[in-house]
Amino acid sequence: MTDDRVAKQLAFLVEADKLKAVCRRTPLIDGSRLENSAEHSWHLLLTAIVLREYTHIHCDLLRVLEMLIVHDLVEIDAGDTCAYDTRGQDARPAREAAAAERLFGLLPSDQGAQLRDLWTEFEACDTPESRLAHAVDRFQPLLQRSAAGRRWRIPYASRTQVLERLAPVKSALPDLWPTVLELIDSLAASGMLVPSPEPELD
Amino acid sequence: MTDDRVAKQLAFLVEADKLKAVCRRTPLIDGSRLENSAEHSWHLLLTAIVLREYTHIHCDLLRVLEMLIVHDLVEIDAGDTCAYDTRGQDARPAREAAAAERLFGLLPSDQGAQLRDLWTEFEACDTPESRLAHAVDRFQPLLQRSAAGRRWRIPYASRTQVLERLAPVKSALPDLWPTVLELIDSLAASGMLVPSPEPELD
Repeated sequence: MTDDRVAKQLAFLVEADKLKAVCRRTPLIDGSRLENSAEHSWHLLLTAIVLREYTHIHCDLLRVLEMLIVHDLVEIDAGDTCAYDTRGQDARPAREAAAAERLFGLLPSDQGAQLRDLWTEFEACDTPESRLAHAVDRFQPLLQRSAAGRRWRIPYASRTQVLERLAPVKSALPDLWPTVLELIDSLAASGMLVPSPEPELD
Repeated sequence: MTDDRVAKQLAFLVEADKLKAVCRRTPLIDGSRLENSAEHSWHLLLTAIVLREYTHIHCDLLRVLEMLIVHDLVEIDAGDTCAYDTRGQDARPAREAAAAERLFGLLPSDQGAQLRDLWTEFEACDTPESRLAHAVDRFQPLLQRSAAGRRWRIPYASRTQVLERLAPVKSALPDLWPTVLELIDSLAASGMLVPSPEPELD
């Protein structure tokens, strides 16, 4: 017989299936559709193992991967919030905290606390592991957008906003910063950046 | 400037986006569509960190996760092969070897060899890490199918075939075997199993 602990774990894994229906703002590179948060999470994990050599931070890669596996689960209840939607971002923490309470609460309490800790650490972004996870979470969608180019004609954001958004890459993966600037140029060349809301100084 | 090494890594990560368009035979639990191999890979990773406590094998969880991240990449060229399609399974190794050659060949040679080794180890299934990864890869789709139940009306396979397919769970996650038998019963109750092609002895 499946005991109570296993039953809770399976209920959580079944509920997690819903992340495959959470729609993000980033298109697939072929422009055929928007991607969902589950396949996005997988792509981040692949990016992390390919680009980890560029971090100067000593960190536990297993924890980085575990963090990336769970980091978007709260979107099952809270939805994906556009990175450049200021009002949406203001309301995001409260929505996501409630989601974390419900979703990680499906698990046995010890394990729910462990996975919730991973998510909390990712959000706080104040450990080497969470800083690297954040850098990957910022870098990969930029790569995907610039590879998709004009095939998805929704302007992205201003250059100033994108540079600010990508800042975690500069500190956690500094050797990739020149690449970030090139990718931003390629977005600009594809007409995917909107005029900056304020004068740019750089 | 992005150097040659980074350029190869980015080309690989861009190519990997195509895994999001590889359609599997397993439906989402809500029955709305078939899932793709990228989101499936993410779900396996989550399953691995939730159910790892049931393995009696001492193994390196980081390697298990890395293996699960790359295990389906070859499907970008080779497609997903139905587990119960005998003819398709016979031709699978050659198709997938060619795919591995091309896809991992996009990376810098040292890193391509490392990721290809992960895939080769997964396929050979003769290390503790690959045995656990296989068990997760067999268990999760069974859970998903039985949770979807009648919402996706394509018969799955015979009970004998499913039991054989799930054998890696019995050895790598023995405490979950009673759960496997319950899930198979739930599939049978949903009319998702076809009559066995040969007499069953159990």
